[in-house]
Amino acid sequence: MSEATRRRVKEAARELGYVPQQSGRSLSTRRSRRIGIVVGELSNPFYPALLDPMVRELEAQGYLPVLIHDDGLEEPTTEPIFDGSFDAVLLTTTLLGSSLPGEIERRGIPYVMVNREFVVDRRARSTAVPDNATGASLVADLLVDLGHRAVAMVTGPAETSTGTERLDGFRDALARRGIALHPEAVERVPFSMADGAAATARLLDRRPVKAIFCANDVLAIGALETLARRGLAVPGDVSVVGFDDIPMASLSAIDLSTVAVDLDRLGRRAVRHLADRARDPEVVPTRVVEPVELRLRGTHGPARDY
Amino acid sequence: MSEATRRRVKEAARELGYVPQQSGRSLSTRRSRRIGIVVGELSNPFYPALLDPMVRELEAQGYLPVLIHDDGLEEPTTEPIFDGSFDAVLLTTTLLGSSLPGEIERRGIPYVMVNREFVVDRRARSTAVPDNATGASLVADLLVDLGHRAVAMVTGPAETSTGTERLDGFRDALARRGIALHPEAVERVPFSMADGAAATARLLDRRPVKAIFCANDVLAIGALETLARRGLAVPGDVSVVGFDDIPMASLSAIDLSTVAVDLDRLGRRAVRHLADRARDPEVVPTRVVEPVELRLRGTHGPARDY
Repeated sequence: MSEATRRRVKEAARELGYVPQQSGRSLSTRRSRRIGIVVGELSNPFYPALLDPMVRELEAQGYLPVLIHDDGLEEPTTEPIFDGSFDAVLLTTTLLGSSLPGEIERRGIPYVMVNREFVVDRRARSTAVPDNATGASLVADLLVDLGHRAVAMVTGPAETSTGTERLDGFRDALARRGIALHPEAVERVPFSMADGAAATARLLDRRPVKAIFCANDVLAIGALETLARRGLAVPGDVSVVGFDDIPMASLSAIDLSTVAVDLDRLGRRAVRHLADRARDPEVVPTRVVEPVELRLRGTHGPARDY
Repeated sequence: MSEATRRRVKEAARELGYVPQQSGRSLSTRRSRRIGIVVGELSNPFYPALLDPMVRELEAQGYLPVLIHDDGLEEPTTEPIFDGSFDAVLLTTTLLGSSLPGEIERRGIPYVMVNREFVVDRRARSTAVPDNATGASLVADLLVDLGHRAVAMVTGPAETSTGTERLDGFRDALARRGIALHPEAVERVPFSMADGAAATARLLDRRPVKAIFCANDVLAIGALETLARRGLAVPGDVSVVGFDDIPMASLSAIDLSTVAVDLDRLGRRAVRHLADRARDPEVVPTRVVEPVELRLRGTHGPARDY
């Protein structure tokens, strides 16, 4: 069929009120224009902040985003990933031990891991992640420069690259400044506000803590919650620093000092790399590392009363 | 094929690594198990709060949620709604003048309007909405009982049922108490934090305002932002009351007095009604009205200095 004929048929069909039937189109072209996105709890404000730019960029590229919800408790319903429904997949909840990326890889479905990644061997995989180690070391240097010694950390699960790399980066950078991060000054919890609040309460009950680095802003907002409830001043009594710079962090009422990740750029870069791979199987998997920087607001201050 | 045979085939297929091919299945059953959700900006925290329970309930019912993004500026990409991709559609961004519900109706695709609705005639349509008029009148009575006379409102666009019904309900309830809502004490803006902040600044510049009812929490958090920047105490100088009770509203740092809508229940009820309609075309379209109640926190207080 010539391009002109194709256009005339389309116009005639539109006048008659027809639209292309997706199921038929999918069988003929083997392209569904659907991209699956495995995403965590939307009630956790980190995920909408990451999802929003990905959805916009997918739409700009002519794709439809399909949500696959991973609550971190049960295995997400992954059947649609394997049944030919999607041209490609974005994974945002990958655990270090996940079998999903390997299964997707074996079936030749293009995918990109966003924010979290899975590392088992030296093979290059498609990922778009923040520079976790640098971010954590910036926080360590900031707190040490402010005179803090009684530092603690609330981090995420050991199976998340974000939780692990931000803890390792913080501990290593403190060690370079001659400060040991005491094992009792570390809490590892799921990335939720309630868990951040509870972990902070446990830290405060256990040790004198003057500065807390939280592995993401959601945990940090939970920490602020506990400090407010206990009548402790921030940063007068305790400094708090987060990671990510989600939109909530910049509200005057929260005003969180944090490590800023450009989530908009991270999400868009992930989608562009994915679209390149979906169009051309020869595109080489790339690890995109998004630079980070300190965003100093109102929750950090000098150490007092030592 | 008997159920037992079907099961044996499925098991054998699974052992061989096969999964059902969605495109083929869709052609044979005319069911895609996909539900399209037209949703607003995910960076606006109202939408994740509404989307989260809908996504969970859809998954519990064996459906896959497909996001169709409506930024309120351009028309959303609606072709997939009409091309047979979806068994049914959830609309969360309906405007009073939208043509989309009508088009969907003409094509016989089951849909439910959630949170916002479209009313042109007396015909029953499937909607799940909060009791806007009651919520707004509860706020009016609260503020009048606290002695407020210099009241103002920041509401949403005239084309949204939420913006319009909450304004009408507030104005009517104030009138019943003998108080007129001055036209200069009303700002109509898009439902965003930045617009809520800017509208509040304009109100304060125009009139002495001691209490502001915001048509949703997102606008109210924007109002709190402006009041904090101007050094005005809440509720000492100005009371602020929102609507919705999104998760952020309950943070100690925000502590917003608001009209609580059980968004979890609203979302789940919408999905259950939709699933009923998708299964059985004879199911009668129903208007589900979700009750509301005042959630009194820290941003309202008695009138002073009159």
